[in-house]
Amino acid sequence: MPTDSQRRRCANALRVLAMDAVQAANSGHPGMPMGMADIAEALWRHHLKHDPADPAWADRDRFVLSNGHGSMLLYALLHLSGYALPMRELQNFRQLGSLTPGHPEVGLTPGVETTTGPLGQGLTNAVGMALAEKLLAREFNRPGHEIVDHRTWVFLGDGCLMEGISHEACSLAGTWGLNKLVAFYDDNGISIDGNVKGWFGDDTPARFEAYGWTVLRDVDGHDFAALDAAIAQARQSDRPVLVCCRTRIGQGSPNRAGTADVHGAPLGDAEITLTRQALDWDAPPFEIPAEVRQAWDAVERGAAQHRQWQQRFDAYAQAHPELAAELQRRVRGGLPQATVAALAQAVREAEQRGAKVATRKASQDLLNAVAPTAPELLGGSADLTGSNLTDWKGSEPLTGRGVGNHVHYGVREFGMAAVMNGVALHGGYRPFGGTFLTFSDYSRNALRMAALMRLPVVHVFTHDSIGLGEDGPTHQPVEHAHSLRLIPGLDVWRPADATETAMAWQEALLRSDGPSCLLLSRQALPHAGDGADRTALITRGAYVLREARGAQVVLIATGSEVGLALAAAQRLADEGISARVVSAPCLEAFERQDEAYRRSVIPRGVPRLAMEAGRSGLWWKYVGEDGDVVALERFGESAPAPALYEHFGFTAQAVAQRAKRLIA
Amino acid sequence: MPTDSQRRRCANALRVLAMDAVQAANSGHPGMPMGMADIAEALWRHHLKHDPADPAWADRDRFVLSNGHGSMLLYALLHLSGYALPMRELQNFRQLGSLTPGHPEVGLTPGVETTTGPLGQGLTNAVGMALAEKLLAREFNRPGHEIVDHRTWVFLGDGCLMEGISHEACSLAGTWGLNKLVAFYDDNGISIDGNVKGWFGDDTPARFEAYGWTVLRDVDGHDFAALDAAIAQARQSDRPVLVCCRTRIGQGSPNRAGTADVHGAPLGDAEITLTRQALDWDAPPFEIPAEVRQAWDAVERGAAQHRQWQQRFDAYAQAHPELAAELQRRVRGGLPQATVAALAQAVREAEQRGAKVATRKASQDLLNAVAPTAPELLGGSADLTGSNLTDWKGSEPLTGRGVGNHVHYGVREFGMAAVMNGVALHGGYRPFGGTFLTFSDYSRNALRMAALMRLPVVHVFTHDSIGLGEDGPTHQPVEHAHSLRLIPGLDVWRPADATETAMAWQEALLRSDGPSCLLLSRQALPHAGDGADRTALITRGAYVLREARGAQVVLIATGSEVGLALAAAQRLADEGISARVVSAPCLEAFERQDEAYRRSVIPRGVPRLAMEAGRSGLWWKYVGEDGDVVALERFGESAPAPALYEHFGFTAQAVAQRAKRLIA
Repeated sequence: MPTDSQRRRCANALRVLAMDAVQAANSGHPGMPMGMADIAEALWRHHLKHDPADPAWADRDRFVLSNGHGSMLLYALLHLSGYALPMRELQNFRQLGSLTPGHPEVGLTPGVETTTGPLGQGLTNAVGMALAEKLLAREFNRPGHEIVDHRTWVFLGDGCLMEGISHEACSLAGTWGLNKLVAFYDDNGISIDGNVKGWFGDDTPARFEAYGWTVLRDVDGHDFAALDAAIAQARQSDRPVLVCCRTRIGQGSPNRAGTADVHGAPLGDAEITLTRQALDWDAPPFEIPAEVRQAWDAVERGAAQHRQWQQRFDAYAQAHPELAAELQRRVRGGLPQATVAALAQAVREAEQRGAKVATRKASQDLLNAVAPTAPELLGGSADLTGSNLTDWKGSEPLTGRGVGNHVHYGVREFGMAAVMNGVALHGGYRPFGGTFLTFSDYSRNALRMAALMRLPVVHVFTHDSIGLGEDGPTHQPVEHAHSLRLIPGLDVWRPADATETAMAWQEALLRSDGPSCLLLSRQALPHAGDGADRTALITRGAYVLREARGAQVVLIATGSEVGLALAAAQRLADEGISARVVSAPCLEAFERQDEAYRRSVIPRGVPRLAMEAGRSGLWWKYVGEDGDVVALERFGESAPAPALYEHFGFTAQAVAQRAKRLIA
Repeated sequence: MPTDSQRRRCANALRVLAMDAVQAANSGHPGMPMGMADIAEALWRHHLKHDPADPAWADRDRFVLSNGHGSMLLYALLHLSGYALPMRELQNFRQLGSLTPGHPEVGLTPGVETTTGPLGQGLTNAVGMALAEKLLAREFNRPGHEIVDHRTWVFLGDGCLMEGISHEACSLAGTWGLNKLVAFYDDNGISIDGNVKGWFGDDTPARFEAYGWTVLRDVDGHDFAALDAAIAQARQSDRPVLVCCRTRIGQGSPNRAGTADVHGAPLGDAEITLTRQALDWDAPPFEIPAEVRQAWDAVERGAAQHRQWQQRFDAYAQAHPELAAELQRRVRGGLPQATVAALAQAVREAEQRGAKVATRKASQDLLNAVAPTAPELLGGSADLTGSNLTDWKGSEPLTGRGVGNHVHYGVREFGMAAVMNGVALHGGYRPFGGTFLTFSDYSRNALRMAALMRLPVVHVFTHDSIGLGEDGPTHQPVEHAHSLRLIPGLDVWRPADATETAMAWQEALLRSDGPSCLLLSRQALPHAGDGADRTALITRGAYVLREARGAQVVLIATGSEVGLALAAAQRLADEGISARVVSAPCLEAFERQDEAYRRSVIPRGVPRLAMEAGRSGLWWKYVGEDGDVVALERFGESAPAPALYEHFGFTAQAVAQRAKRLIA
């Protein structure tokens, strides 16, 4: 075993790299890396199972820095452990194009498991990772073959614990019994505003015991023996574990440690000099003494661990060749051929059936047809299963034993979305989850994070407008379709009928590089097709649903308002006015088309009227300033849906009137 | 004392009204009203201090139905107690134009204290109300004159307790020692998806004890004596109180009670008949037996309580006339004349100074000048005080003793926003709070609720674009300005300089019927004025900042991009191209102007180029399809701000280039 002073020297390498990089960038957060350096040494050098040469190794432990502002700690760990993160990247901390952005970004930096910074979400991603591990282990391990067997380790601070999402995530982790999840709480008593006593009086250990976690109290976060003992104990737990580490923020800085000053600003040259002295650290910035570098190097140990696992996997593959192949497919991602075929088939059948059906029901029909072919689908709902219709024939509720493929997330929209992100990051499952569209507000930043991380998660948002009726304005989204469309990289589908719903699911599931939302109606919607094959057109995001010779006006609609547009067009036709109807289920897909196609669907120089039961918002881009939008620029009302449509001017008559005004 | 059977009959009146109204509407939630009817009887008939004839009585107890789907319970209570809510409104439950919408709406129905439905927020509003009461009592009560002395009572269910915001709110309530807050937990073990065991395993009493609450465990929610004892005990507590009531959802329905089926659907005629029999209730729907009606009638008791308080207030007014007058003003709302004058003065001085300053700093300057004149201002920040600059000279941090006017909310953005809503609903204070703009995502639904309730709260959102620099894409809002503009009734200000910042504060504080957001820069921004008096123009939301004879192009910008527009106009002028510059700090205010003004600022028929360091979104409405938008349609990057502006094409040169392309 290395001595304490050797270990301290390793930890100090992290401290010095963090303070020097923050100083060089003249921006960043030295306090947390310096405070958690000893914990990091204990975990990374003695417990973490990882292979720096292969950050994608499926059975690696996951490490999540939920207090992502301490990014330099992670970059220092990755660099020293031997990941492909050279010192020049640390010297370029927070500079344009570097691999070391201000907060860790998955997909950019080798070894970073999730993008963190928005507090509480890293922890929740970790709960999703641990859930995926448990499910995958249950599904694929066989007696004598524990080929899925890794842990999820989390660093987190006071901020993560104050955020509401920590409640949602940790309650779920307790209920699900995620015993391979271990979180280290950086209990330094300081947040940005100062000593937390004035705004954070929780008995955090008692709180976590109330969630059914194992809590290791009062661990000295600067005592290696205590940390070793805690980690050993954590490994034995049959529940998730919170290791409460008493630490000093900025540990090592003689004048700043233990104060809020060290949280988010460079120490300054003078204090850095003093800190170097205090730490007995002579090496210049960004130089690591050879013996420290060697002590940190995890390449050989990682390769050995990986090799050993590979041998076990080879034995598994011999004993269970089909399972092994399926596990490899699942980890790799990509849908089974049977699912791709089932999706296409479901689209065709929906179009042939031509049923009048709520799109939320059409979505469930799709799941019934497709989900049995795709064991990676992990559905769920935030306590609205019977409303969102995210379950399907043969879906099984998740239980604490780690079986099931439909998750009852409880009334936890934000937690659900961030857990889904964690599941997607882990791999092996394709998560989707449901709630009412209006409550996408609650989960909004996790949707944003899914888009930023390019995770192929699917959100089923039902009750997508005033069409939900009596529940009233708190439950009626009017701004949400547009506000979701504003998140870069998020595909927002608002299908008009069963066919478009099936297509939306197909596109969402075929998408591997980003999230999708399905905005679905509570109320039944008529079939919009007229027999012509629309499927290729629907994928283009907007298409001519009903052509009219010499169209005098173009009616553009989505979802439940497509039927309205068709009825208005009919009414106009009866008056001798020729109107084209464009269905636009996904503006993001439409924007990806070339200009020629876009102009062919929504031409210039012809009056255009868009309609959507929500704010006019982005529609002005498509109708131009001579156009008009039948919209709802205010909150809704509580009443039966037909009364609301009438009240707010969403009738064929009113639309036809507005169209005629444009032509005149 | 009434007998148990008399009391049960009173409670059954609530049950029957709820089930009959839901049946009549063919929509709604009978389960909760029937389950909590006995608790409601205990609280409303024996403890609640209120005057049905004057729902605005300042010292009334506040009652919050956080599980707002049980709205019929509240409507039945208000009707029976004697509020101006006639039976025909109950018969019109959930119909267009009724006073009985699907979820309770404050401002619509007399006696409703807050709009609830989005779970967890009612509870959090209640925390804000209890905070306001505590602060107001501390500020205005004098020895022998306890003229502010009321309680806040909350009903809540499993859903509220699963939501993350309950963690934020209840942690704060514990830290603040809000002993006049009493919450009744409807512990019926059922949520929409069924028995909560599978997704809600918390030891809730232990959790709340960890927050520093008094927890009354295992109270039988159908036993009046037990409820009386619990309420009596709750009144003695020196901490917030959670009364854990074991109940049966849908109590009284022989076949549905205790099941998820009774949560959100009518019982049906057959089960209603059986329930009437089980409850021994003969009266037809919407008829209340005279003795029950009389037992419920709270008009006399309420008037007496109110009278008694008025006498005490009169004595207080004699002893402390100035305090009494100030309290009346504070409860009434409306700024002091001195504040109105200070605001105008601050605007003039900002314009005269013409400093180059970050708008977040300009905001703090405004507060320094104005806040001392307005004791009702209750500032705060979600643990970013030094970044948001929401504190001011002479502001004092809130303490558990109920003094202070700046609240350290901790890292709890959603909790902060919903607490602010509660403070505003209570009256006596004008809350404002700060966080980074990107984290408006976390609080989004509470902003929506503020807009729906027309509450004059002010949100200070700093670090409003890629201009924040190195913290990177997780912290850089690109979609947020537009997504906030989409919330109906929310005024979104993005000021260009200190003058516009002061004006934005002025407009936000003068606004009494809705919320405002201030989107402020981290980085210093140049003074935009040229000496002409802009103040009247700024209030109009958008105005001609720099006129150009025969303008060939109109440049429209907000916030940090106004300086860019001015620089680009200069560059164009150097090339002989005439460009008008429009500053558009508040599109909502601009939309309230008449068309003539709007066209005079942003004319048609002239090429227009908008610029904002975020998505193009709503700008197409203003530039038309022949116009263009200098925007950021993707996530940002981690780098120093100047590098990012260069990288993403926000330079005078690039803007001038885009403008020239429009003219060509």
